[in-house]
Amino acid sequence: MRKEEVVPKIGFAQYEVEFGEYDKNTATITRLAESAKGADLLVFPELGLTGYEFKDAREVERYAEPFGAGPTSETLKKLAKRLKMTLAIGYPEYTTRGCFNSAMLATPDGKLHNYRKLHLFSREKELFTPGDAEPPVIKTPAGRVGLMICFDWFFPETARILALKGAQIIAHPSNLVLNWCQRAMFCRCLENAVFAVTANRIGVETRAGRKLRFTGASQVVDPKGDTLVKATEAEEYVGLVDVDLALADDKHVTPLDDRLEDRRPEHYGALAEAQTQGTLA
Amino acid sequence: MRKEEVVPKIGFAQYEVEFGEYDKNTATITRLAESAKGADLLVFPELGLTGYEFKDAREVERYAEPFGAGPTSETLKKLAKRLKMTLAIGYPEYTTRGCFNSAMLATPDGKLHNYRKLHLFSREKELFTPGDAEPPVIKTPAGRVGLMICFDWFFPETARILALKGAQIIAHPSNLVLNWCQRAMFCRCLENAVFAVTANRIGVETRAGRKLRFTGASQVVDPKGDTLVKATEAEEYVGLVDVDLALADDKHVTPLDDRLEDRRPEHYGALAEAQTQGTLA
Repeated sequence: MRKEEVVPKIGFAQYEVEFGEYDKNTATITRLAESAKGADLLVFPELGLTGYEFKDAREVERYAEPFGAGPTSETLKKLAKRLKMTLAIGYPEYTTRGCFNSAMLATPDGKLHNYRKLHLFSREKELFTPGDAEPPVIKTPAGRVGLMICFDWFFPETARILALKGAQIIAHPSNLVLNWCQRAMFCRCLENAVFAVTANRIGVETRAGRKLRFTGASQVVDPKGDTLVKATEAEEYVGLVDVDLALADDKHVTPLDDRLEDRRPEHYGALAEAQTQGTLA
Repeated sequence: MRKEEVVPKIGFAQYEVEFGEYDKNTATITRLAESAKGADLLVFPELGLTGYEFKDAREVERYAEPFGAGPTSETLKKLAKRLKMTLAIGYPEYTTRGCFNSAMLATPDGKLHNYRKLHLFSREKELFTPGDAEPPVIKTPAGRVGLMICFDWFFPETARILALKGAQIIAHPSNLVLNWCQRAMFCRCLENAVFAVTANRIGVETRAGRKLRFTGASQVVDPKGDTLVKATEAEEYVGLVDVDLALADDKHVTPLDDRLEDRRPEHYGALAEAQTQGTLA
């Protein structure tokens, strides 16, 4: 097997996104990706080139672009090819059914993949259309990478589905304003035996009277729940670490226990029902 | 509403179970329950009157009893009536289809409820039959109480199903030999907005050359993920705390976000499938 399939170098670029400064933010991710020597997978934040706190849905539309046919797709594809890295970043996706809060992933061969955030957070519900498909897992030179975006972490279903679909690594572009996630990814990674790369923003965004402080602390967590590399709360940082993907392939907790095979889906019907059928005893 | 329905006093009794010393262990839980003044819900450990490390399935059979028709049922029912408490404890359940690692819950009116552990851990797989139904939620004077047992915590599906069925409190009899659970219950409680009472054992059990050290640190965690009361790792302890059940009824994360209503079950089909249908992109 090629080196990249066994111990890829994976990580995040944490930086300050300046709202509406598309070209400046593009220069930032280009500079950070170029500095990430030897990286096989590099994850950028949610809405990483536009900023987060849109005034209204019309403003989202102005910054949004169709998947595969806009500046972010071009930038990411070229960067992935030139630097031979798999790259993921969040962006506002323009479609005829409204705009999605999406993430795209580019592989070094120039292919692009897309994911539309299933679980929108707070005001995003007023700005975006909710995702319309289960999250994807993509075979890349850095391993099998699943995509989820920010608040998706809160719903254990998201990471679980990615693990069931074979993800070894979860690429997790984020704009976190609390610090629950950084603490909880221990549990997400442990329960699924996956690596997770949470790429968060830093800095403050003030728009239309609203002030959001992003909590940084981007991190890579391993299948045992251990944090392998972590950024501070307020500094630009590229965090990279070599990971042994075999750890994510072996789902055993002990020789007799397996995280996925020991599931009892015949008794999990309630999870996929729109409303719960269970009754109180 | 009655006082108990609003701010019940809930907690755990952590103690050393002596293997095979049924009468002595019964005296221990009686003494601890009597000391738990004002408790509305008190949770004891998994296999709390027999011990854990059975030599083989035959030995389990010797200690097992049918639900509702054995000494544990009698003890728990009487204790619950006399002390006006809801009580939960783990026990080996005898049935014609083998023995289950079960937990029973007794309400002050003398009613008994049963749960058979869905996710057996390690050697338990050789000793017990796996549970055959989704976990129950029971209406008690202490609130709506869901049951799960020890390693069930590792599978996010268990606590999620209990929350979907309306549990305000998860009673969680345990025999933990690691300390992952105590750390991860932050996430289980936060993602579901439930209280959880994890009742663990202390001490060492040495049987047939195997030595198990139980990690204590029983705890009550609230819907924000905060630990309200916690025992040490090696001391007998009854931990009780008054809890506001309204916190578990309100599933909002923010005014616009709801832990259960924001789920996207139409895209969670993979969770209830025996094998995953997902394909790699």
